[in-house]
Amino acid sequence: MLQTGLMMDRPLLLSDVLEHAAHQAGDTEVVSRETHGPLFRYTYADCAVRTRKLANALAGLGLQPGSAVGSIAWNNHRHLEAYYAVSGSGMVMHTCNPRLHPQQLIYIINHAEDEVVLFDATFAPLVKGIAAHCPKVRAWVCLAEKEHTPAIEGVANVLVYEELIGPASESFDWPSFDERTAAALCYTSGTTGNPKGALYSHRSIVLNALAGCLPSVLNLSSMQTMLPVVPMFHINAWCIPYAALLSGARLVLPGPKLDGASLYELMEAERVTISAGVPTIWQALIGHVEQHGLKFSTMKCTAVGGSAMPQALIAKFADSYGVEVRHGWGMTETTAVATMSVLTANDRKKSTEAQHAIVAKQGKSVFGVDIKVVDETGATLPRDGTSQGELMVRGQWIISSYYKAEKSPLVDGWFPTGDIATIDASGLMQIRDRTKDVIKTGGEWISSIDLENAAVAHPAVAMAAVIGVKHPKWDERPLLFIVRKPGQSVEKEEMLAFLAERVAKWWVPDDVVFLESLPVGGTGKVQKGELRKEYGGVFS
Amino acid sequence: MLQTGLMMDRPLLLSDVLEHAAHQAGDTEVVSRETHGPLFRYTYADCAVRTRKLANALAGLGLQPGSAVGSIAWNNHRHLEAYYAVSGSGMVMHTCNPRLHPQQLIYIINHAEDEVVLFDATFAPLVKGIAAHCPKVRAWVCLAEKEHTPAIEGVANVLVYEELIGPASESFDWPSFDERTAAALCYTSGTTGNPKGALYSHRSIVLNALAGCLPSVLNLSSMQTMLPVVPMFHINAWCIPYAALLSGARLVLPGPKLDGASLYELMEAERVTISAGVPTIWQALIGHVEQHGLKFSTMKCTAVGGSAMPQALIAKFADSYGVEVRHGWGMTETTAVATMSVLTANDRKKSTEAQHAIVAKQGKSVFGVDIKVVDETGATLPRDGTSQGELMVRGQWIISSYYKAEKSPLVDGWFPTGDIATIDASGLMQIRDRTKDVIKTGGEWISSIDLENAAVAHPAVAMAAVIGVKHPKWDERPLLFIVRKPGQSVEKEEMLAFLAERVAKWWVPDDVVFLESLPVGGTGKVQKGELRKEYGGVFS
Repeated sequence: MLQTGLMMDRPLLLSDVLEHAAHQAGDTEVVSRETHGPLFRYTYADCAVRTRKLANALAGLGLQPGSAVGSIAWNNHRHLEAYYAVSGSGMVMHTCNPRLHPQQLIYIINHAEDEVVLFDATFAPLVKGIAAHCPKVRAWVCLAEKEHTPAIEGVANVLVYEELIGPASESFDWPSFDERTAAALCYTSGTTGNPKGALYSHRSIVLNALAGCLPSVLNLSSMQTMLPVVPMFHINAWCIPYAALLSGARLVLPGPKLDGASLYELMEAERVTISAGVPTIWQALIGHVEQHGLKFSTMKCTAVGGSAMPQALIAKFADSYGVEVRHGWGMTETTAVATMSVLTANDRKKSTEAQHAIVAKQGKSVFGVDIKVVDETGATLPRDGTSQGELMVRGQWIISSYYKAEKSPLVDGWFPTGDIATIDASGLMQIRDRTKDVIKTGGEWISSIDLENAAVAHPAVAMAAVIGVKHPKWDERPLLFIVRKPGQSVEKEEMLAFLAERVAKWWVPDDVVFLESLPVGGTGKVQKGELRKEYGGVFS
Repeated sequence: MLQTGLMMDRPLLLSDVLEHAAHQAGDTEVVSRETHGPLFRYTYADCAVRTRKLANALAGLGLQPGSAVGSIAWNNHRHLEAYYAVSGSGMVMHTCNPRLHPQQLIYIINHAEDEVVLFDATFAPLVKGIAAHCPKVRAWVCLAEKEHTPAIEGVANVLVYEELIGPASESFDWPSFDERTAAALCYTSGTTGNPKGALYSHRSIVLNALAGCLPSVLNLSSMQTMLPVVPMFHINAWCIPYAALLSGARLVLPGPKLDGASLYELMEAERVTISAGVPTIWQALIGHVEQHGLKFSTMKCTAVGGSAMPQALIAKFADSYGVEVRHGWGMTETTAVATMSVLTANDRKKSTEAQHAIVAKQGKSVFGVDIKVVDETGATLPRDGTSQGELMVRGQWIISSYYKAEKSPLVDGWFPTGDIATIDASGLMQIRDRTKDVIKTGGEWISSIDLENAAVAHPAVAMAAVIGVKHPKWDERPLLFIVRKPGQSVEKEEMLAFLAERVAKWWVPDDVVFLESLPVGGTGKVQKGELRKEYGGVFS
């Protein structure tokens, strides 16, 4: 009969992450861009004091353990305080993506049953539009002082964050409870149907934050200054606001200023060593740096996820600017990072190009997560680097079901990601496509992502997207969309000839459409559904 | 009412650590010194195959979940396989310290109810002496091939490891069970009374291993080659055999050859980047390196614990050899590391000497562990760096009680360590003494450790120890023991004058005794109890 270990039984709770930072990295700085412009600075010890005040203030508003608190906010110190005060009190921190359609925002606030919503002044017009449709929200709290809180016509119950926490006590006894208690809630961007909620537990977030600090993931410690560009309003900024405090890393929160020039200036001024965000952010940043002939003084590493980072961009960061790219993969349903591509000691003996090719994949599963790819019958495919199938994932920080959903999405205990991937013998996973984007032609699959990566390697191409269009003979054929770089020219014939040198002949798209821009959704990804609506007819 | 998160509920199990390494670092090497001399090499993928074979073989011996398996063995690959096969099967891996007195070994093997004991050929004489007194042990398995397995007179049931696992199947379905299940058992060295057992759970070991890989703890990843000198027969080699596989670090296991010359040779030949062990090991290593005018080619870091590392030795490693010392603290009851002294970004702006002084402390609590110091009434003392009291610890990998003990050692949920410590405002903890070693004189405390550190700073001193001796007026007064370096001379008056310049006047010992050697116990620590027996009379 199994024996039970004789160890202390203490839950993994987010309040312990906050108090750990306050005690072990109490003088470490948090730098935060206020929504109205200037930088704000304090320490983790200060942060803990204000977080305890907020916990008292929220209790004073009548919130109870289990209550949901919404936020529509930038990456800033008040949002950080809310993360810990809400979850630490046993309540649910529901981060709302302001880029969702207002109807979807109303839907998720009501579905989550948010009783209080915290918002940044930027989003006052949004609040004005939705408040009347969110009857359970007792108070809308502007994350600012009085002077920076706008009046919102027609919304009576607007509170001022600083006035709310000002009189509250600085001491708060964080409650202890089961580590499987819900801590945070994030909805998918919901490109089809209503958004679906992932309800993260304290345990899953703490384990993800621990794994996220590992040298082969984000490498966070008191030696680093981390600037998360990835928004705290979506997937908890990949859990960096938790990992930073757990590790004692210095934290720089950029607020609303996310353009290349602002990010570069902040990185230099605050001596940032590591950052994290989606590829479009890095494209903009490197564009600014190149245009002005700049260099990075302290930046050594950036973590990239959300969509695939082209190898050319990885190479540029590494070779021209000495910034290592770490390429990861995760989704709302996986809390944060599930796989990460980081060079091993053996990899570093290979050619530069071979190294970039490794980083261009989405990497190996982080400890705590298992991955596999399966065929259409659910059979596991070999780890040979070529067998493509749907990526399945399971582990410590993967959802078991959606919030208030009746049916579990799991298949034999694994979460089906909707991504098409390969895994090679060394465990390296590569996303080849979304199941709904892959182009099925003549019984074979064409990866729309591979085609797009090949297209953006052309010097005149700023963005590219590929969709499958019905074809009477081949089932589907690829159609390529191109956005040209400003002042650059490239035409269809040149583009197709360029691709013909880089992909199999039968992969070359049947046509090219040149657009001024591509439709982009709430999380910064190209909305191929929009392209399909307009262009997805039938090739003749 | 609290809400429950909707995340997959998967236990933290050691079998997942093994399979993670097999899948994500399958081609990473393990290098192991055979007990009979040569180096053995294989990969984590190979290791997993042989571990599964061993799991099948142990089941074939009739062992059941919950059974205990003992080991008396060096750091080598077969011992590593046993770690995972035993715990992964739901059995308890009981590592025995061969430096214990044979009577104590008999006691712990019977107390643990070991059904099988794995041993290295080195310890055949030990097995010969104890086997008849361990009636529950069905088989003594020599960790070797047939040709290197000695016959043991009078012990019939000796099996050969390679013959045991040879015919076993390479596939094994690791059972899933509660993560609080016992995985490993280690007894204290028991300087007074019988040894007491700490029964570690899968959860506590996995969490410790995760935290151990953090950049600010051991910084383990696929970039590192780790050589644990700290023995697998005591406190699981500080959980490095788990952390290495979790992180994909290359592992070099030194077997029985632990002298300075052998370690240096192995570190150089295998391009070791990080090591871990007690200060006496590093003293011997640096002695060898200095004597032969050598350098370290790849070694960048060493973790030190078990007893305090003198600041002079920390400085020598860092300044003369470019090897960063990371100074930790833990004990059998804390699974492995509980605190670690690592320089932060701010610390690195300070003078070299100030940096060494920080590292000479035992550091900050690792995430997952809380510490405090209390006075004799149990009241928490301020974190001011000077208030000394007993160090209390609680957390994810701290015991709640001893194996088969009726009474819990905890005080209000905290484990009393028996160490006297201070904690400063930044969270830095410093061990000042053992509660039983501290010298109480005239109502004040003298730290025996501080005095010893001051004494070993003298160039002629190899080792020093201080005990309190009863004194009619002052209650106790310090008595200093000195072992001189070979060929060096120093006498009492010079020694006391040297100390008088470095410590408070009332700290200067009343007398000095010069010895050829100091009595050292099973875990390499000076046995002050032996000194007290012989010298602990009364000062007049």
